[in-house]
Amino acid sequence: MVEVTPESSGPIYGVINEASDDESRVAVTPDVVRRLRKTGVPCLVESGAGMASHYSDDLYRDAGATVTDRDAVLARSDVLGFVSRPAPDLLDGIRPGTWIAGMLQSLTDQPYIDLLAAHRLVGIAMERLPRRLSSAQSMDEMTSQNSVMGYKAVLVAANAYGSFLPMMTTAAGTVRPAKVLVLGAGIAGLQAIGTARRLGAVVTAYDVRDASRSEVESLGASFLDLGVDLSSGQGEGGYARELTEDEKAAQQAAVDRRAAEFDIVITTAKVPGRRPPRLLTSSGVAGLRRGAVVVDCAASDLGGNVEGSVPGTLVTDNGVTLIGAPNLASEVPDTASALLSRNLADTVTHFITGSRLERTADDLGEALV
Amino acid sequence: MVEVTPESSGPIYGVINEASDDESRVAVTPDVVRRLRKTGVPCLVESGAGMASHYSDDLYRDAGATVTDRDAVLARSDVLGFVSRPAPDLLDGIRPGTWIAGMLQSLTDQPYIDLLAAHRLVGIAMERLPRRLSSAQSMDEMTSQNSVMGYKAVLVAANAYGSFLPMMTTAAGTVRPAKVLVLGAGIAGLQAIGTARRLGAVVTAYDVRDASRSEVESLGASFLDLGVDLSSGQGEGGYARELTEDEKAAQQAAVDRRAAEFDIVITTAKVPGRRPPRLLTSSGVAGLRRGAVVVDCAASDLGGNVEGSVPGTLVTDNGVTLIGAPNLASEVPDTASALLSRNLADTVTHFITGSRLERTADDLGEALV
Repeated sequence: MVEVTPESSGPIYGVINEASDDESRVAVTPDVVRRLRKTGVPCLVESGAGMASHYSDDLYRDAGATVTDRDAVLARSDVLGFVSRPAPDLLDGIRPGTWIAGMLQSLTDQPYIDLLAAHRLVGIAMERLPRRLSSAQSMDEMTSQNSVMGYKAVLVAANAYGSFLPMMTTAAGTVRPAKVLVLGAGIAGLQAIGTARRLGAVVTAYDVRDASRSEVESLGASFLDLGVDLSSGQGEGGYARELTEDEKAAQQAAVDRRAAEFDIVITTAKVPGRRPPRLLTSSGVAGLRRGAVVVDCAASDLGGNVEGSVPGTLVTDNGVTLIGAPNLASEVPDTASALLSRNLADTVTHFITGSRLERTADDLGEALV
Repeated sequence: MVEVTPESSGPIYGVINEASDDESRVAVTPDVVRRLRKTGVPCLVESGAGMASHYSDDLYRDAGATVTDRDAVLARSDVLGFVSRPAPDLLDGIRPGTWIAGMLQSLTDQPYIDLLAAHRLVGIAMERLPRRLSSAQSMDEMTSQNSVMGYKAVLVAANAYGSFLPMMTTAAGTVRPAKVLVLGAGIAGLQAIGTARRLGAVVTAYDVRDASRSEVESLGASFLDLGVDLSSGQGEGGYARELTEDEKAAQQAAVDRRAAEFDIVITTAKVPGRRPPRLLTSSGVAGLRRGAVVVDCAASDLGGNVEGSVPGTLVTDNGVTLIGAPNLASEVPDTASALLSRNLADTVTHFITGSRLERTADDLGEALV
């Protein structure tokens, strides 16, 4: 039975075990169980849910959660938190009226959202939270997970690379530092820049958004100079205009050509549920030197940022190690879980009024589907 | 045929392909081919010898080496360089009088040394070079390879660890930095300390040699305080005396107990050809928290620094990832090869007088077997 302690009069938060070959994260950690209890929200956790991220059932119990089986979690919770979203065959086991928080893929999978509605479930689509709001920052799962991804991408690259990242001066000669190119300078790219710099690499980055130049430079990296003039025309009112197809082709050719100077290329332009933008073509990969390493964080069945990348590791004919790494956040599961648990908990808590879950009329209500 | 250019009147240096599942290094790189040519030493390289460390045959040819088959390298070289040593079945293919430079395991495998003598081959045992001499520093393969090992040990540990090494402050909470314990503070240990510090970890180290305390501290790490008084007696003349068995047991128990505070433990006391010293017992491993990572650089068929470690990765019942990593230098093959190639070339060059290989009467002659 669910223990309802005096201070636990709020809705029950439930989390099941989502672990699979591609997923090691869990939607609540023991620390977040404690945090939720303080706001009056008791937790139900499926036995084993945290094992892949090193949180044992005992740790959850110590934190005050009730550890039980999956059916009980699904049936008894008022709100369920997910790393991703419940598979369709689980929906029948969930009480109508239950809230479902997770990456619901609402922007790309309307049939699934219709299915939630048909089961009379309320979705909190984490991907719809208005990231512009400072009040939503601690709920921003995209930011927290992309940050983990950028960190891990550098470790994966460094581990696959046959030389040092830092410069080393030894009695047997000096080893030059690795030259790292980060393509895409969003949250993941900036974290990759910082981590590669920590390890002593010489880092250059590029993003089609010219505004990212100052962020890149503030981290001590260089912004890639393409040697192509893309500024010849400005759009109306001084706003940057969309590049023409010819200009885009010239831009891509320049990136491909410049990539040849680097030892490691990390691409980070991941767009959940959508085909990722192409940042490096086959011609760019072919121009890399033997021993170069490419980590494509956006590799997927829909293709990746790098032409020819697939999830997993392959070595090209010219000796380039091409790593398609679609699940990097999950590969740092303890921390990734800690951050996303907090994102989910803060989001769910926002929709609790008194001791009940309620739709809000504020901007965060945009996330409800 | 071997090309003998006017400046190439010295002995011919030959290198074969030693690549295997456990070995990706090569005993000469294209840069070192150039270096040797400048001193009049032409190089013969087996086709494919450098592929596992990303040096193609073309790069060797561009550097001026002759790329040929294994039999030709063995038969025509005046001195052969090895990452390890030639297998016994290769010795028949080598001309009597040829010099063999490599890690010959002369200190632990006398029958092999006798075999070299029976084939009338001159061994340059890299493990016997007097490391105390500053003139031998650029020849010191133990130092260069252990340095690579220490760097890689941290990358392997960081990659297996489920959280960040650096502290990170995010909107979804602060992630504390990883606590890393390095056991054994020789070349590899010091490099591991430096690399873990680069990545932002909080590092503590321990070595039975109390003199290493200042080296550890100069790198910004803490020296592990065992809380055990081992200084009660000094030996004659003020020298440290050997610890008694009881004191050693107290020391080990203290290390095991203190290890429980750490997220990552890296052990680096590797002794080629010998049983490595035990630095962490099963009881120490059992005390680590779920999710902790241990990297044992000395894991081998003879046992490792960590009780229960074997080459490869295993997860203990208490959720500790125990990585036995006997070939870490080989896993950074490009740089490891570059450094050991230079070590070998400088050593071989030392024994060239005029245009011939000659035994020397100096201290470096101690390496000849």
